[in-house]
Amino acid sequence: MASSTDEATASASPAQGYAVGLDVGGTKILGVLVGPDGSVEGTLRLPTRWGPEGVVSSAAEAVTGLLDAAGVPVERLTSVGVGVPGLVDPASGGVQHAVNLGIDAETFLLASLLSEHLGGVPVSVDNDLNVAALGAASVTGGDVDLAFLALGTGLAAGIVLGGELRRGVSGAAGEIGHIPVDPRGPLCACGQRGCLETYASGTALGARWPSQHGRPAPAELFEAAAGGDERAVLVKNEFVTAVAAAIRLLVLSYDVEHVVLGGGVSILGAPLLDAVAVALEEQASSSPFLASLEIADRVRLCPTDVPVAAVGAALAGRRKVSKWKL
Amino acid sequence: MASSTDEATASASPAQGYAVGLDVGGTKILGVLVGPDGSVEGTLRLPTRWGPEGVVSSAAEAVTGLLDAAGVPVERLTSVGVGVPGLVDPASGGVQHAVNLGIDAETFLLASLLSEHLGGVPVSVDNDLNVAALGAASVTGGDVDLAFLALGTGLAAGIVLGGELRRGVSGAAGEIGHIPVDPRGPLCACGQRGCLETYASGTALGARWPSQHGRPAPAELFEAAAGGDERAVLVKNEFVTAVAAAIRLLVLSYDVEHVVLGGGVSILGAPLLDAVAVALEEQASSSPFLASLEIADRVRLCPTDVPVAAVGAALAGRRKVSKWKL
Repeated sequence: MASSTDEATASASPAQGYAVGLDVGGTKILGVLVGPDGSVEGTLRLPTRWGPEGVVSSAAEAVTGLLDAAGVPVERLTSVGVGVPGLVDPASGGVQHAVNLGIDAETFLLASLLSEHLGGVPVSVDNDLNVAALGAASVTGGDVDLAFLALGTGLAAGIVLGGELRRGVSGAAGEIGHIPVDPRGPLCACGQRGCLETYASGTALGARWPSQHGRPAPAELFEAAAGGDERAVLVKNEFVTAVAAAIRLLVLSYDVEHVVLGGGVSILGAPLLDAVAVALEEQASSSPFLASLEIADRVRLCPTDVPVAAVGAALAGRRKVSKWKL
Repeated sequence: MASSTDEATASASPAQGYAVGLDVGGTKILGVLVGPDGSVEGTLRLPTRWGPEGVVSSAAEAVTGLLDAAGVPVERLTSVGVGVPGLVDPASGGVQHAVNLGIDAETFLLASLLSEHLGGVPVSVDNDLNVAALGAASVTGGDVDLAFLALGTGLAAGIVLGGELRRGVSGAAGEIGHIPVDPRGPLCACGQRGCLETYASGTALGARWPSQHGRPAPAELFEAAAGGDERAVLVKNEFVTAVAAAIRLLVLSYDVEHVVLGGGVSILGAPLLDAVAVALEEQASSSPFLASLEIADRVRLCPTDVPVAAVGAALAGRRKVSKWKL
């Protein structure tokens, strides 16, 4: 009887307990502490240490840092959710090919290792785009259809349908960056030619307009274009046209209600959104069919005041625990 | 009390009653009668009469024909589901722009008109691709992720995720035919340039290799290619490469387990499947990422021994009635 009581104390129900969500990126970890009522009660930012050992220890440090700052004992932590930029098996919590974290082809069991570090708290791991999509959906209102389009190193989307993640049978749903859109286009790192990613990613932008003044390439490009530099105008137009093509593709395949722009390039904010809207209107100007879909009205910027990926990771962790308990 | 008993007799529960599914095409209606246990108890084929009046009266004729042939009284019919090639509002059962049925921009309330003709039996109407996808899923095993890729007049896909139709917020999910894949490609009827549909549809094939011997263009093309005609080999390769591109796009966006080839061109059967598999393997040969998705293994031909769209229509009708009764 005593042991049963102990167990109940050590694992509060998800509804009563706290959840932590971590967005583990190549340079930093963003963490949030979510309270029993679902509100964000604390945030934290730490540098990421690379390699399997480094990722586990810095993630554990982020969790304890969040708990300590809020004065919440670890016993009240019911779940941890982690988003990482790599190939993730959500069932096992194993990670592969997270190049930006120094993790190679060998499967690294992040979920179980981090859980051990934290005294057995359930840990779920998912792809960073998936948790970002889930976080963006929860910020938008929860039960929505939404694509989170990340314009970063690569180009890919996290997909939420009716509030639930669409992962696909092999975790490849939303890998639209590797759909070729020009048979004569540049070679892509994936081995194909003319992939959407070779036009619409942050990397593609940086290759065509490298940063020259120590600021992010997208900001320098948009400023040069605003200042009238003809080549900058051309490069900017090509880039936003490709982003518009990615959005059109998401709407024609999924017909989602919202497309949320995220990733490094989205820090441009309103000027990006405006330029993409113009490109979408231009594409629709020759096509009554496209125009009827009102694609430009579906596009949003990822909120910058909420760490959506960390919030989504916390949500994913809590949902996984709820399923375990059912 | 008597009226309540009458009512119960007149509307047997979906579980006890019969369902009819109709696949209404430009030239013919294919109908199935589905028994209380879900098995197909009868099929029927009738010519379609055009225009709103013609569609309603020939559809009603198909329903009564199926019931009469099986000796089932109309009182035991609990739902009718219809699939039509046009823009459908599944909520109202209204149809627009069904050019192949002689139905124009004015909304034609097929569901309520057909229901009136049948003494009030609930009628659901959906897009023909959606019901085909649902039918293909039920034949495959029900609770699956599947894209039904129709290679016909146009190019579009019906999408089923976890056994449920994915329609999208404006009914446009799966409209992948209007995703441009070559900025220098031919003008599409939709107003854009280089749409997938201008390469991978039955219409596109027929334009490049018109039927000359009174048989379907795809059959004549594949035979000429098999006979060594060099231009036929070229046209065939371009066509199957475009079909492979459509399949790759479906897998990279949805990551579905199965892609089922349907529509007029799919009557080619095994030679089409083989050629598409070769094209998919070729695309994957330069890309370890694509190869890892094993796309060729996901492709199936639509079964020809079952009228999948009519079966799917019956299923959609039955599901809608179940929701009404809940």
